[in-house]
Amino acid sequence: MNDDPLFRIESDSLGNAAVPVEAYYGIHAVRARDNFAVSGRTVNLRIIRAIVMVKKAAAKVNGRHGDIPEQVAAGIVSACDEILLGQWDKHFIVDAYQGGAGTSTNMNVNEVIANLVIERIGGSKGDYQLIHPIDHVNLHQSTNDVYPTAMRIAMIPLLRSLSEEFASLQEALQEKEREYADVLRLGRTQLMDALPIMAGQSFGAHAKAVARDRWRLYKAEERLREINLGGTAVGTGMNAPLAYIYAIAEELRELTGMGLCRSDFPMDGTQNMDVFVEVSGLLKAAAVNLLKISGDFRLLNAGPSGGMAEYILPPMQVGSSILPGKMNPVIAEVAGSVAMKVISNDTAVTLAAASGQLELNAFAPLIVESLLESLEILTQAVRLFHERCVQGLIVDAAHCLEQLECSGVMAAAVVTYLGYETAAELAKSAAASGRPLKDILLERGLMTKKQIDAILHPLEVTKPGIPGRSRDE
Amino acid sequence: MNDDPLFRIESDSLGNAAVPVEAYYGIHAVRARDNFAVSGRTVNLRIIRAIVMVKKAAAKVNGRHGDIPEQVAAGIVSACDEILLGQWDKHFIVDAYQGGAGTSTNMNVNEVIANLVIERIGGSKGDYQLIHPIDHVNLHQSTNDVYPTAMRIAMIPLLRSLSEEFASLQEALQEKEREYADVLRLGRTQLMDALPIMAGQSFGAHAKAVARDRWRLYKAEERLREINLGGTAVGTGMNAPLAYIYAIAEELRELTGMGLCRSDFPMDGTQNMDVFVEVSGLLKAAAVNLLKISGDFRLLNAGPSGGMAEYILPPMQVGSSILPGKMNPVIAEVAGSVAMKVISNDTAVTLAAASGQLELNAFAPLIVESLLESLEILTQAVRLFHERCVQGLIVDAAHCLEQLECSGVMAAAVVTYLGYETAAELAKSAAASGRPLKDILLERGLMTKKQIDAILHPLEVTKPGIPGRSRDE
Amino acid sequence: MNDDPLFRIESDSLGNAAVPVEAYYGIHAVRARDNFAVSGRTVNLRIIRAIVMVKKAAAKVNGRHGDIPEQVAAGIVSACDEILLGQWDKHFIVDAYQGGAGTSTNMNVNEVIANLVIERIGGSKGDYQLIHPIDHVNLHQSTNDVYPTAMRIAMIPLLRSLSEEFASLQEALQEKEREYADVLRLGRTQLMDALPIMAGQSFGAHAKAVARDRWRLYKAEERLREINLGGTAVGTGMNAPLAYIYAIAEELRELTGMGLCRSDFPMDGTQNMDVFVEVSGLLKAAAVNLLKISGDFRLLNAGPSGGMAEYILPPMQVGSSILPGKMNPVIAEVAGSVAMKVISNDTAVTLAAASGQLELNAFAPLIVESLLESLEILTQAVRLFHERCVQGLIVDAAHCLEQLECSGVMAAAVVTYLGYETAAELAKSAAASGRPLKDILLERGLMTKKQIDAILHPLEVTKPGIPGRSRDE
Amino acid sequence: MNDDPLFRIESDSLGNAAVPVEAYYGIHAVRARDNFAVSGRTVNLRIIRAIVMVKKAAAKVNGRHGDIPEQVAAGIVSACDEILLGQWDKHFIVDAYQGGAGTSTNMNVNEVIANLVIERIGGSKGDYQLIHPIDHVNLHQSTNDVYPTAMRIAMIPLLRSLSEEFASLQEALQEKEREYADVLRLGRTQLMDALPIMAGQSFGAHAKAVARDRWRLYKAEERLREINLGGTAVGTGMNAPLAYIYAIAEELRELTGMGLCRSDFPMDGTQNMDVFVEVSGLLKAAAVNLLKISGDFRLLNAGPSGGMAEYILPPMQVGSSILPGKMNPVIAEVAGSVAMKVISNDTAVTLAAASGQLELNAFAPLIVESLLESLEILTQAVRLFHERCVQGLIVDAAHCLEQLECSGVMAAAVVTYLGYETAAELAKSAAASGRPLKDILLERGLMTKKQIDAILHPLEVTKPGIPGRSRDE
Repeated sequence: MNDDPLFRIESDSLGNAAVPVEAYYGIHAVRARDNFAVSGRTVNLRIIRAIVMVKKAAAKVNGRHGDIPEQVAAGIVSACDEILLGQWDKHFIVDAYQGGAGTSTNMNVNEVIANLVIERIGGSKGDYQLIHPIDHVNLHQSTNDVYPTAMRIAMIPLLRSLSEEFASLQEALQEKEREYADVLRLGRTQLMDALPIMAGQSFGAHAKAVARDRWRLYKAEERLREINLGGTAVGTGMNAPLAYIYAIAEELRELTGMGLCRSDFPMDGTQNMDVFVEVSGLLKAAAVNLLKISGDFRLLNAGPSGGMAEYILPPMQVGSSILPGKMNPVIAEVAGSVAMKVISNDTAVTLAAASGQLELNAFAPLIVESLLESLEILTQAVRLFHERCVQGLIVDAAHCLEQLECSGVMAAAVVTYLGYETAAELAKSAAASGRPLKDILLERGLMTKKQIDAILHPLEVTKPGIPGRSRDE
Repeated sequence: MNDDPLFRIESDSLGNAAVPVEAYYGIHAVRARDNFAVSGRTVNLRIIRAIVMVKKAAAKVNGRHGDIPEQVAAGIVSACDEILLGQWDKHFIVDAYQGGAGTSTNMNVNEVIANLVIERIGGSKGDYQLIHPIDHVNLHQSTNDVYPTAMRIAMIPLLRSLSEEFASLQEALQEKEREYADVLRLGRTQLMDALPIMAGQSFGAHAKAVARDRWRLYKAEERLREINLGGTAVGTGMNAPLAYIYAIAEELRELTGMGLCRSDFPMDGTQNMDVFVEVSGLLKAAAVNLLKISGDFRLLNAGPSGGMAEYILPPMQVGSSILPGKMNPVIAEVAGSVAMKVISNDTAVTLAAASGQLELNAFAPLIVESLLESLEILTQAVRLFHERCVQGLIVDAAHCLEQLECSGVMAAAVVTYLGYETAAELAKSAAASGRPLKDILLERGLMTKKQIDAILHPLEVTKPGIPGRSRDE
Repeated sequence: MNDDPLFRIESDSLGNAAVPVEAYYGIHAVRARDNFAVSGRTVNLRIIRAIVMVKKAAAKVNGRHGDIPEQVAAGIVSACDEILLGQWDKHFIVDAYQGGAGTSTNMNVNEVIANLVIERIGGSKGDYQLIHPIDHVNLHQSTNDVYPTAMRIAMIPLLRSLSEEFASLQEALQEKEREYADVLRLGRTQLMDALPIMAGQSFGAHAKAVARDRWRLYKAEERLREINLGGTAVGTGMNAPLAYIYAIAEELRELTGMGLCRSDFPMDGTQNMDVFVEVSGLLKAAAVNLLKISGDFRLLNAGPSGGMAEYILPPMQVGSSILPGKMNPVIAEVAGSVAMKVISNDTAVTLAAASGQLELNAFAPLIVESLLESLEILTQAVRLFHERCVQGLIVDAAHCLEQLECSGVMAAAVVTYLGYETAAELAKSAAASGRPLKDILLERGLMTKKQIDAILHPLEVTKPGIPGRSRDE
Repeated sequence: MNDDPLFRIESDSLGNAAVPVEAYYGIHAVRARDNFAVSGRTVNLRIIRAIVMVKKAAAKVNGRHGDIPEQVAAGIVSACDEILLGQWDKHFIVDAYQGGAGTSTNMNVNEVIANLVIERIGGSKGDYQLIHPIDHVNLHQSTNDVYPTAMRIAMIPLLRSLSEEFASLQEALQEKEREYADVLRLGRTQLMDALPIMAGQSFGAHAKAVARDRWRLYKAEERLREINLGGTAVGTGMNAPLAYIYAIAEELRELTGMGLCRSDFPMDGTQNMDVFVEVSGLLKAAAVNLLKISGDFRLLNAGPSGGMAEYILPPMQVGSSILPGKMNPVIAEVAGSVAMKVISNDTAVTLAAASGQLELNAFAPLIVESLLESLEILTQAVRLFHERCVQGLIVDAAHCLEQLECSGVMAAAVVTYLGYETAAELAKSAAASGRPLKDILLERGLMTKKQIDAILHPLEVTKPGIPGRSRDE
């Protein structure tokens, strides 16, 4: 029947299909590959590995309980270990975009494991009488409890990495906060000249936002620890022995080291995806901060002649073929670009989560692919921004001061002493002439040099209270 | 100069403007009303009242510290109380859409308060020599610390109400969970017939999602308690006395009863809006749950002949002029509609928060208007859904059972006993003939009545484990 | 039974309900008001009026065809005219957020019209034996053909107004293009100093984008002209006489003057909402342009000392209580704020349109409310931006030139003559010293004054080709 | 200095960098690869090829005009042809997420072409004295005119393919429209039983929506034909000879066969990205239709026992490991999933387009990557939906009829004859008893068999007019 030596024939209730002889995947994966020939990009391998961890845990429990022979269990465990080492990556062939709630990804894994074990015990790939993808590898499981569990296992390590990257970024910003703790620059509100601040304070404000990101993402892990494994198809747990149900969560917790816990109502996790919307919302908040901060950097770096030009971002690549020496803020831009993508992925997560119907959400693959991408690219973007933009950044202190002094905003510091109207007039004079306020005050004999030094002192104008007046009042 | 008895003339650095004589607002509000003549809808009054609370607290502190005369402070406090009682609502005339970071809203409040006090002490509206909107009412404040503080004060009570509405919804769902704890219905995955579940379990799964909403929104309040009041224009606190800074947070905490606390770095809250993105993300997660649940209700209520028809939603209004007796799931629909709006408002919050630049976010008014709307409409939608849809809902137990029995899915329960192939054949026969599986099993002599009753017992097929087998194994 | 003189009792298949005696609405509106007590904001009156136009057209046709008595038809027409004049606005009480595909809004209109006619012919409100909301006012109609038709009628005039506002904005920008046709300023790419441009060209680029908006919105009307009126409940037209179906579209076309045409397949317009997504997408494109342009204005206006400070936006209101003389770009900000809202409303339109199921879209009210709001606020924002920001804008030509000359970017113009390396060195020298390139060239004897004037001439460096070289080459 | 035989050293103004000896890319690409190490996914090759087309056209023009030696031009053209054949794909190493407005992608192309030509003429890779990436390959160009031009060239063919796929889908739906032109089924509004329709009409309504998509996407190409090539860095065209500017558009038009035309104001296309938002909005409208249609298919296919079960979608893969014979609507689901992704990509396009500043949009790469992905996956999803879901779909005519007859909605057809109240009572009886209306009418003697056949005839109840009454009235 099958004369082509390059293919073997497998069959299911829909008929036969040809599978490449060297392939460890089977008929389900082949059908799914063709049904979902959408993007050419296959499932994120983090999902594959997370599913494999579930398979390994199940094999151990099922072997221990005598539901599958010990050597079958050992074979599955061994196959899982190989996959986790990355040896069989190209056998996971289903597209990232797929119908079903992850069934095809789960089956692809089941098939690869089964065929690896079959060969190990001397059989031929496809001879599922020996080891069956469902009866052995998927025993007591359903896509509908395996997949939501794997979504969490795939995401948790990335949340940790991202939180750590934000921690590093926070430290880098705080380092700049210290470095420029006494460099005055012009604060702007609505982009217009406002009050003086310390350049360091500005980094401090950025660091505060980043600290919240770090904390939020660190805490987000807690939302993901509850797994519905053991619930099987609809969450009731039908056909999964109680002993298995209790053991599997424990096994998986040990295997992953992730503090996973069994849901007391697995039907919830099978159909409700709101925790992923919640986590995506936190990623979005982080993206918003990254957009804000990278945007501020780009504004303050604008120039060198025709912009604020208070920051000098580290040059990372040549910027222009026409303009010699032009350096562009490309790292800040790529950070912003990634932030926008994270925001847009949140739309996909929201739509997919809202599209759950009754006992299942058929769009779980879109949710997890979107979240994994957001986590991965945001982690890299934060790292690049930290290492290639914040760390080497220089504040042009002299230019900051010059710009501040010519602006007249220091007049706000003398309102308490000279009254609002005089201050207003002084501000206008300073701005018009481009001369420092100090000089004008002295020239007009409005204040003594000592007073001026006391009131317009950098530390006086950038901290709470009336400049020049004791804070103990 | 001004001969029109209906108007008084006020002036600022841009010149004169006519203000209606009976108006308590002043020239700034008039200019802002015209500059922002966008929607005809004025600022959400919750923002006005929150700002007024800040004004009241500031007056008390400033009076106590001698920065304004005691009777001026008393006058301001008294004017604030009147506004909080809703007596002067129509004098807040600035459009909900506005430029600036809330300046015009803050100034509108300052003006109304000043003019109320002026009249109280015998002056004429507009005679700011007596009481000045800025020098007295706004003393030691800036829009940039008042407004972000007021955003939080306006939102916190709504978060509490919403959390409470979710609590009520949760209880109503749990009541249904108990009521239908032993009514079997067909579970569906990907909309296709799957395993049996209890109708009650389905409500339980919904209740679990809602419980998370309740908890998340309850906890969200913590994110909003830190206020930047005292930071003045850019967060450094210039021109606000230290004594005031310490006292104002305490005063406001007492006044609001909200557990507010002073930020240790107010520059953060002046420019960073990520906490609002975070809260908006939680509202979005809640909206996603509401969409999912209300969608399930609509699906299960579909019919009466041509749909699942397992739920009978309480009839709330006549549905059709052509079809007698048609009742539509309008409450579930309005809940879904509101959920969509909340999701779309999250887009506005995200865009506005990401658009902050340097020391301020000029789009704060869009953030708070969007969030207040989401909070208000979601609270009402949850209440209506609870009171007018969940409470009166009836599960058609007989129809549920009939539909389940004809589906053949019960065959999954006998796989362990009869093998997968026999079960598959039985499932097919049941579905094809529309006859209950029990009858077929009995007829073919595959199981005894006693066995059947033990294995296909409702409580056996809807809980973890192998149906009919002891759970102690 | 009803002893309360303030209420009359009406009844429907669900029982009785009390209606205020002075109310022209009836029992359906009362139930709907309570069922949808969400926002307190009632349906946009543009929808009410559009529905009323349909009612008027139907009454004329039905009267002419003898399906309702002539005097009834006349009474309905007269009542419609009163409503269109705005006399009965407060009788439309249903919330903007509602379940159903517009049924309650349609019924509210039917009831008000019926009761107005009833009173006119001497009856008492609620005596629907005389004039019936459904049998007379709604005759041959269904919400499902009336509402989608009314959505279009409500939107078309707003599309026209918005297109006209964009036309005015385009003209204002082109006026600035002419005004500043020979004012050099520094072009920036990625916010960094790039090549010289004319300030006028910049307005020209903005005008081009706005011209596309104008055209797109003008053309968008075509998408909305096809109406499904006559399709009744599901689009098949059951129970609507053919003669009516043909006449009603013609009648409505005349009444509205909008070029409406009858769909040849009304089932399409009853269930598919993609045209609204298309129109919303065009509004979003316009919003994106408005964000970009207003953002550019804010950047170029930043300062006066610490920013680009090349534009001086017209001062519209006092900006700060702390900083004397601070003027903020509030009109550009409100334009940006509205643009963000339009973008977020597009999310609501998209979600609602995608949520249509089978023969109807139950979320049509959310679609039309969102679109009407976007159209209204965008129209006002464009008008304000045009009148209060573009028109009075001044380009600071001297500062533009100074900033350009100190930047060194003019060196790009001499690359062809002096080679890339020399040009690079010149650029560096100019930027470092802050001296104009011209002076350095002359000083070093690299070019004669005549050459310099020919090559670095403003018109040479801002148009296609090699500066200083004949364009006829 | 460089002792490592695996690398060559290249240098730029920032210093040296090691480039793998076999690499055709150069130092800029190496720096960019490291600066943008975000996703590991490189730039969509469609962009690379589109840029290569621009390079080829420029080389031909520059060679013809004598601006580069003829043999250099020929070498570049030949290198371009090889790249277009896909021979050097792995040398394009820059990440899809990148800072800058496409500079690094453009430079990567310039470098690969230069090195290919260098080798061809006997030089060593990196010896740019022979052929220079900028001076030869990029001559008279800038990223800022090349990239926006290439964005259009990359998208246009995909728009055509997508439009054609929609055409095929439309035809498939129309084929079903014909096939089921006389199969009655129950129409549903708000998911509730409404009036009868023909199953064919339902496909017709879907086909209408798809026809609009087809047309819109076909027309969208026009929006993209205007290119800013010749504008160089900021759109003024500085340093590009006029002769080149005129010739290059013509050359590129011929090369691509795409009807491209030169912008009369290239500064517009350099900084404004609204046309991409417009196109993205059309893709979103198409996605909304796909979500609606695929959702309808899933609803109508639900069952086989516990849902509408009027459609039988072609079985494409085994659906469940627990439930024998379960077939899931996976093709409809993957179509929906892709639609959601397209909607989310629109968010990225919108954000990026709105983030343009002054003379350039630094986020163009995010725009084009998002749009290309949307175009690619939507094309495939439409194809799969058409081939694997619509084509093999079967309507279960008998079940449709049975469901309709038991519903009582046919009573709406006799309202004109028997009055609303009788009809209402009949509807209730039919629904309660589950018996066809015909039988009840006959049994009660309300109509003769002949009348019944005339009035309740399938063709009477699914077309405009009063059932059973001549349409000539």
